[in-house]
Amino acid sequence: MSTEGPAPLARLVAELSRLPGIGQRTAQRLAFHLLRAPDEEAFALGDAIREVKEKVGLCEECFNLAEGPLCRICADHNRDRATICVVEQPADVIPFERTHEYRGLYHVLGGALSPIDGVDAEDLKIAELLSRVGRGGIGEVVLATNPTTTGEATALYIAERLRGPQLAVTRLASGLPVGADLEHADEVTLGKALAGRRSLD
Amino acid sequence: MSTEGPAPLARLVAELSRLPGIGQRTAQRLAFHLLRAPDEEAFALGDAIREVKEKVGLCEECFNLAEGPLCRICADHNRDRATICVVEQPADVIPFERTHEYRGLYHVLGGALSPIDGVDAEDLKIAELLSRVGRGGIGEVVLATNPTTTGEATALYIAERLRGPQLAVTRLASGLPVGADLEHADEVTLGKALAGRRSLD
Repeated sequence: MSTEGPAPLARLVAELSRLPGIGQRTAQRLAFHLLRAPDEEAFALGDAIREVKEKVGLCEECFNLAEGPLCRICADHNRDRATICVVEQPADVIPFERTHEYRGLYHVLGGALSPIDGVDAEDLKIAELLSRVGRGGIGEVVLATNPTTTGEATALYIAERLRGPQLAVTRLASGLPVGADLEHADEVTLGKALAGRRSLD
Repeated sequence: MSTEGPAPLARLVAELSRLPGIGQRTAQRLAFHLLRAPDEEAFALGDAIREVKEKVGLCEECFNLAEGPLCRICADHNRDRATICVVEQPADVIPFERTHEYRGLYHVLGGALSPIDGVDAEDLKIAELLSRVGRGGIGEVVLATNPTTTGEATALYIAERLRGPQLAVTRLASGLPVGADLEHADEVTLGKALAGRRSLD
């Protein structure tokens, strides 16, 4: 006999523990919570999972998440259509939107170049980016891939492909995060912060 | 416009963040994972939630989780039917079963006495326990409520109600957890460990 209780509970624990960062114990705690929760609450979660899988696709233009053919940003006529911010994943759009500082469009690559993991240029939406830029009207492409080895390589690769006289290709600044403690800064970040120091005029 | 992406995604994040211990950021990470995961995997989680809510109820005898009228432990004729281990929650049965040391039955109270939270004796399955014991054939009741204020109060209350010449009423030992470091033991646990010291004969 299983020591883990009824089969449907064991199955729910197994499914929950497949989620990233959810271990066996957390999965068990969540499963017991769902079992005790009102039906409406538990079913609302199940329905939300189904709905997100059925209704959310990728924007035809920028490959951000979208409920229809275009995402809400590409469909918004108040955005600055001359600027494209290139990110790795749809999740990376959210922190940019939260700044309320960026008014341009996005382009979601779907990952970063990583030959070791078998991710080459044709696995990412790079050709689609080049084609968007090639249609004209773009003044700046901000390369906002992650400040990691693969993100840097991807930014350099794209910068090389975009090179042209009419287009500014920029990269996000690397440096100390706001509120950080210098004592605990890693040496790579501190090196970047030093190299990118700005005059206080 | 929401900064959090399409409405179904925002709804999934909201539902996930209602789970205990899941904050906004974790909920967002899980939602993006489910969005990227194969349909089968995401739907399997939704189905497992629905199945657990629809199929799992409480055992008529011991109030542990059960798929039918009786839980698998009460239905198992190889268990020692003269011993009842009293626990607060169905989740508490699992660690006992994992020990493979306990062969008796259980009784799940559904909580612990806590007048401050409005939990009185009639909110717990205490009358049902007294009635089980009253039907005879029980030699020992192990009170395995949590070693907390409310768990102790519940154990003492039940012990008082069960008092009788034919019945052993026992409580789990309190003391240092196996593998613990004495230096970091809290004084209450250490006090209990000292009070409960055993002769090494």
